[in-house]
Amino acid sequence: MRMYDIIMKKRNGGELSDEEIRFFIEGYTKGEIPDYQVSSLMMAIYFRKMTERETLTLTLAMAESGDKLDLSAIKGIKVDKHSTGGVGDKTSLALAPMVAACGVPVAKMSGRGLGHTGGTIDKLESFPGFSTGISNDTFINNVNSIGIAIMGQTADLAPADKKLYALRDVTATVDNMSLIASSIMSKKLAAGADAIVLDVKTGSGAFMKTEEDSFALAEEMVKIGRGSGRRMSAVISNMDQPLGLAVGNAIEVREAIDTLNGKGPEDFTELVYTLGSRMLVLGGKAENEEEARAKLEEAVTGGYALEKLAQFVKAQGGDEKYVYEPDRLVLAPVRKEILADRDGYIGHIDCDEIGICSLMLGGGRETKESVIDLSVGLLLDKKVGDKVSKGDRLATVYAADESKLGAVGERFLNAYHFSDDFVSKQKLIKGII
Amino acid sequence: MRMYDIIMKKRNGGELSDEEIRFFIEGYTKGEIPDYQVSSLMMAIYFRKMTERETLTLTLAMAESGDKLDLSAIKGIKVDKHSTGGVGDKTSLALAPMVAACGVPVAKMSGRGLGHTGGTIDKLESFPGFSTGISNDTFINNVNSIGIAIMGQTADLAPADKKLYALRDVTATVDNMSLIASSIMSKKLAAGADAIVLDVKTGSGAFMKTEEDSFALAEEMVKIGRGSGRRMSAVISNMDQPLGLAVGNAIEVREAIDTLNGKGPEDFTELVYTLGSRMLVLGGKAENEEEARAKLEEAVTGGYALEKLAQFVKAQGGDEKYVYEPDRLVLAPVRKEILADRDGYIGHIDCDEIGICSLMLGGGRETKESVIDLSVGLLLDKKVGDKVSKGDRLATVYAADESKLGAVGERFLNAYHFSDDFVSKQKLIKGII
Repeated sequence: MRMYDIIMKKRNGGELSDEEIRFFIEGYTKGEIPDYQVSSLMMAIYFRKMTERETLTLTLAMAESGDKLDLSAIKGIKVDKHSTGGVGDKTSLALAPMVAACGVPVAKMSGRGLGHTGGTIDKLESFPGFSTGISNDTFINNVNSIGIAIMGQTADLAPADKKLYALRDVTATVDNMSLIASSIMSKKLAAGADAIVLDVKTGSGAFMKTEEDSFALAEEMVKIGRGSGRRMSAVISNMDQPLGLAVGNAIEVREAIDTLNGKGPEDFTELVYTLGSRMLVLGGKAENEEEARAKLEEAVTGGYALEKLAQFVKAQGGDEKYVYEPDRLVLAPVRKEILADRDGYIGHIDCDEIGICSLMLGGGRETKESVIDLSVGLLLDKKVGDKVSKGDRLATVYAADESKLGAVGERFLNAYHFSDDFVSKQKLIKGII
Repeated sequence: MRMYDIIMKKRNGGELSDEEIRFFIEGYTKGEIPDYQVSSLMMAIYFRKMTERETLTLTLAMAESGDKLDLSAIKGIKVDKHSTGGVGDKTSLALAPMVAACGVPVAKMSGRGLGHTGGTIDKLESFPGFSTGISNDTFINNVNSIGIAIMGQTADLAPADKKLYALRDVTATVDNMSLIASSIMSKKLAAGADAIVLDVKTGSGAFMKTEEDSFALAEEMVKIGRGSGRRMSAVISNMDQPLGLAVGNAIEVREAIDTLNGKGPEDFTELVYTLGSRMLVLGGKAENEEEARAKLEEAVTGGYALEKLAQFVKAQGGDEKYVYEPDRLVLAPVRKEILADRDGYIGHIDCDEIGICSLMLGGGRETKESVIDLSVGLLLDKKVGDKVSKGDRLATVYAADESKLGAVGERFLNAYHFSDDFVSKQKLIKGII
């Protein structure tokens, strides 16, 4: 078998066989097939696309290219959740303890990514002492005893995807639905869950800007998951404005705790319940959505969800007092209120720009080496559809010092677009698969 | 400027600016842009194509990527000829002395390529003592005194093309008309001629298998040449069967000499006159085709063309006696006649296969390191449209020993397809641009 023939076949519109796809992924992972052949194949795939079978085979080949997590020592149906990412996305912080409180085992291995804010692990480190540097045994034992554990990424999951994504990223071959879906799903499959609930974001702050693309990606991923024998569900949710009101790290943890106390922002609370109820059904802890939602609400009102977070934080070395007294979570000392410069309705928000404000404050990573300031961030007062008068507070900025305040304030105001006419509030849940 | 943006622009169907194309070619030549980005751009170009302007700019950028020949010390209009290559293509051997005899200066720098037989330089080395290892001064002086010289490739002409072609060759991105045309023309432009006559082959033994593609390539190259200020013409000629009757090296030299004596095969003679008359017109040595053809015929009947070959061979150290007594040119000792195994008309010939027979005998190079046996080859008796009876000789094989005779004979016979019905002879000249 020759890589040249594989490129030629795809270029000419042919369908690659399972053997050809495995040959290419194995050869590339081992370094036997050069980058320049793979990038030309990726561009051919961009133009010719891949069939459902090709996409599934590619995903499985990448999932099998390195280590795979073995969660068999954990009792029950392991349900994973994956978000395609956005601004103010602190979903896991509230969702994981909530579903764990309802009996769905949460066993996650996480890495630290790049973004407007830190990832889940970074945010959890707002709790003094908290660490994901736990052993495999502790990880398994914690899940079996308290139902929840998160460990730092020690295993080499789907290295083929890592290598392929890095190449696609510099050769303008990222934007293909099959390749995007297989990249996400290969890591999820290698992470060993029995069922996966996907949170596919759509809008100006999401990777997928249009609903059409977001639904297509969700469907593609659900097909891959089912094709590999996993129970799957996907929620398509709005990312045309930040999720909830908090954007940052410690400040998002506070909002997640508020939500576990039943006092979270409406949109964020709705998303957590929607995703959580799918997880409970797939995990066999509820017959249907209604029953699942009732259980989740009970976990909140009964205080079980908050208690689960406290157990989790404590089990991984963190100070559980912060869970019950979230004001202890330190926010940056320099505050600036951003005020509306006119009357009107908030018409739309350039969501990505709000993320960039957080990044400018030091709340996210531009490179792998960046050090995150967990205390900085933004707290929004107004979102799309809100009526405001000139001088009303739109948001509060939390900064480490004065230096960035001017630029951040200006950027923030430019991202908020006003309308004289009535604007309705945005719907959070766009669809469920 | 970033290579990533250039790839993305072309991928999305945009037209690259001159600056972008030059940035890419200069960066790639210097090794600053990696192969994997260039191969993805090549694949994007395969799908999106290039405009006339993009193609011209690419060609000029590649032509300017290394040394350029300066032929200004040579008097007169320098006319170059380029063939896209085929089986039995000994055209330059007869054409160069013929046009030189008519006053068109021939100043060629040639390399040794891969192929079914050697290149022009290899074939000329059938004359004992002949060498292309002459100095620049000798080269210029010879052209100015006797009107013809060929030197081995000492300059680094169009290195960007060399690098790009090698990459395209292993990434399935060769088949794009703009890229093929710019590859050929970049080397021709760097070689410094004022006018270029192209011999674009079409058919089973050519790089371009269909007439449509061959005309398209010819037009593309003519446009590039004219766009860069050269006088251009192109002849599209048949390569559905070998050109002439001889396939090999010394045996092709013999056929070229026969042709300079007015005794060459009809098709080959016609091609040489057709190309030569275009060269004379472009070179200002004739007003029109008719006048040019008359001059060429006079050069042959008067013996001036043959004499020019003798002068040329002698000036570069070869033994001119071989020009006047071509039987001195050594052919391999083992001869085998291939006989028709049935009655009928020759319907068609798998032309490439005849080339491969020559290669199997040792007449061509499979790798740069291959050593060519100049004495081996094939001499055809029958071509498409000839009526044959069982037992008639189709060809004679000249081999160094018995070892390959069986396989070559079988391959040859398999390449000749018979028809019970009348088959007309093939037209050689398919068109002129």
